[in-house]
Amino acid sequence: MDTVLLLPRLLVPVRPRLQVLEQMAVVIEGELIAAVLPRTEAFELYPGARRLELPEHVLLPGFINMHTHSAMTLLRGYADDLNLQVWLNEHIWPVEKTFLGPEFVRDGALLAIAEMLRGGTTMFNDLYFFPEITAKAAAQSGMRACIGLPVIDVPTAWAAGEKECLEKGLAVSAGWRDEPLITTVLAPHAPYSVGDEALRRVAELSAEHDLPVHMHVLESKWETSESIQQYGKPTLERLADLGLMNERLLAVHMTQLNGEDLEALSGTGVNVIHCPESNLKLGNGICPVARLAEHGVNLALGTDGAASNNNLDLLAESRTAALLAKGYAGDPCVVDAFQALEMLTINAARSLGQSERLGSVEAGKLADLCALRMDALQTTPMFDVVSHLVYAASSQQVSHVWVGGRMLLRDGQFLHLDISDIIGRARNWAQRIAAENGMKGVQML
Amino acid sequence: MDTVLLLPRLLVPVRPRLQVLEQMAVVIEGELIAAVLPRTEAFELYPGARRLELPEHVLLPGFINMHTHSAMTLLRGYADDLNLQVWLNEHIWPVEKTFLGPEFVRDGALLAIAEMLRGGTTMFNDLYFFPEITAKAAAQSGMRACIGLPVIDVPTAWAAGEKECLEKGLAVSAGWRDEPLITTVLAPHAPYSVGDEALRRVAELSAEHDLPVHMHVLESKWETSESIQQYGKPTLERLADLGLMNERLLAVHMTQLNGEDLEALSGTGVNVIHCPESNLKLGNGICPVARLAEHGVNLALGTDGAASNNNLDLLAESRTAALLAKGYAGDPCVVDAFQALEMLTINAARSLGQSERLGSVEAGKLADLCALRMDALQTTPMFDVVSHLVYAASSQQVSHVWVGGRMLLRDGQFLHLDISDIIGRARNWAQRIAAENGMKGVQML
Repeated sequence: MDTVLLLPRLLVPVRPRLQVLEQMAVVIEGELIAAVLPRTEAFELYPGARRLELPEHVLLPGFINMHTHSAMTLLRGYADDLNLQVWLNEHIWPVEKTFLGPEFVRDGALLAIAEMLRGGTTMFNDLYFFPEITAKAAAQSGMRACIGLPVIDVPTAWAAGEKECLEKGLAVSAGWRDEPLITTVLAPHAPYSVGDEALRRVAELSAEHDLPVHMHVLESKWETSESIQQYGKPTLERLADLGLMNERLLAVHMTQLNGEDLEALSGTGVNVIHCPESNLKLGNGICPVARLAEHGVNLALGTDGAASNNNLDLLAESRTAALLAKGYAGDPCVVDAFQALEMLTINAARSLGQSERLGSVEAGKLADLCALRMDALQTTPMFDVVSHLVYAASSQQVSHVWVGGRMLLRDGQFLHLDISDIIGRARNWAQRIAAENGMKGVQML
Repeated sequence: MDTVLLLPRLLVPVRPRLQVLEQMAVVIEGELIAAVLPRTEAFELYPGARRLELPEHVLLPGFINMHTHSAMTLLRGYADDLNLQVWLNEHIWPVEKTFLGPEFVRDGALLAIAEMLRGGTTMFNDLYFFPEITAKAAAQSGMRACIGLPVIDVPTAWAAGEKECLEKGLAVSAGWRDEPLITTVLAPHAPYSVGDEALRRVAELSAEHDLPVHMHVLESKWETSESIQQYGKPTLERLADLGLMNERLLAVHMTQLNGEDLEALSGTGVNVIHCPESNLKLGNGICPVARLAEHGVNLALGTDGAASNNNLDLLAESRTAALLAKGYAGDPCVVDAFQALEMLTINAARSLGQSERLGSVEAGKLADLCALRMDALQTTPMFDVVSHLVYAASSQQVSHVWVGGRMLLRDGQFLHLDISDIIGRARNWAQRIAAENGMKGVQML
């Protein structure tokens, strides 16, 4: 088997915590990290191995984007600065109604995959229609993905309703069982858009197959009163009654938590997926990250779709998360740089029940890695590399990316993806969408 | 005189408002924009002019960073995630006490200048000691700067106290009168660190010479009670009594405004300089930008120093400003993308009383411009270039920068600055600072 020694200037393995190591070698064999050891020892133990010097770089675990709608990257900047209901009802849903289909999902997912890899993200946790198409796009691109099997009570181009969603979803899950890059999870859209019966079935399937459940929960204020009106109880109480409040739940957004909710969450094992930029942009509220951390809740990060972000820059998202947590709490000590980095990596792996194989640079784990060049102006000088990663670096400093030991990006260049084709297809969709809506075409480039 | 036609794919002149123009030429003659006109007309009128095609680019006014401590870029990431008083008393001030001097200021300012130019910033409004050194660094680099003449009631390496500050400051102002790139403004540090007598003198000089006054105002909660305790009245009332609450005041931060303050500000002409990332990072509070805008207050943006940001990325700051305003107000419609762009450009020029010569791409104004390549993954596809500039682009997409008609950056490469020398000097300072403080040297690169 081909053995490669990565020789970065600095290594931040994330586990063990708080370490910044010099003069180390990370040994890749096949899809795994075979060893993490001092360089001199590595040279003795692996005399014939290929060596890759990374003299101005820091090596890290790849980032994990815990909430995406990757196909929606085609709607980046399509409608902004609007009230959530106007944005959805008058802009996003009508365009989806017209254009949603396998080709839209494929081209959007490929654009998202390229953008994410370019920024050091090695895995994404997606929630969208035609999940089999997104799975295929990820597998073909060499990117790791956790594919949500969507469940929603309205008919879409993909399925007629909750029942068909579940049937189709389980077939997708079975179909991708043997692809090492792909895992699947249940993905009921939101408490307000999935009924009790379907959610009870989701809870059963989750327990039976040990599958995580990826769901928007308490994204906006409206949901709180809606749950009382529709179901006679608050959202989290309903989810608990349905058997969903456990360590398999990936509760995305959670901007509307009161003191009781925080108590109720404590000890359940529920994971909170924080999407600060999308929450801010839609004016939906602010997730109380510092208080969740106090209550021992596992926190990871997502960009959300590019239609409400408007990029998939997870490193920048960690910066926003750390800054916003401090500003919201009025306390600069909460969510320090290392904790923000944990949200990008090991906490995300843990939320998916995959912390044994992902989320840190340790022997035996999958070789999902990224390297950043740290000799840029904005990261000069450097007293603390972890501070710089979160507070100063640009994701454009990402130079190398590996997924399962396979190098996908080298010196900022893609080795396998055809970027000009991906960009060309995306522009073509934009032209069609703009034409359909009578938008002026001046800005397509 | 050399005439150059810039031929961008798209032009966002900022004035007139909300325009996105195609097929235009921007004519540069000497330091000025001679004309903005359709390309075909330009080719007829200026047949012999040099032409610069920018086929994938958008051309904009250069960004203006309205609050920097440029020399402090050398302390980027030196201390983070700390309470403001601990951060200042135990980290920042001690290191300044040991190292502050003309060479520290020069090397720090040069690093800041390079980073800002790289990101499309063509002018900065600085507040730091040894202002003559910062002025020189800017002028030598070809960057426009507004140099604050600092006034503070404690002795520093630069001056013994308020009186000497003012004397030295006025001499600096006189010395730089004939350099077109440099303007000077009065810069009393903060209401709590400058006494009544000195502030009264600042107000007189400001009125007499029509000089703006650059000051930290209501940065943190502590200041509110401090003012009552020390002066028997709230900060803004005291500043009004001293004759400072007028259109020449650049009030930086303003995170602690109550309803009365907002009424009091309305109609004074006071400019608010918003530094959202630094305010968040230090947990100091959130400036109520949407409400200030409602009250007709002119708003511009600053990064603050790199010690509390930790970069000088003004485009990213505009994104944070727009997102935070929406999240804080719970309203996605406030501070739209174009308004954020105005804060970076024309509002900043207006705050300095320089909107006749800066802040938009219009004939007769100074040719301070930047161009960004928009064919990156994160700005694909494109329905709305202004949305992309604020919500999706990376400042690393800035390709060209001109200050006063002189091209300083071309295709992302500096034409005049010696970047490796600037980086080398900054690393050298970091080594010395780390050695003095017994920090491990592993992370200097």
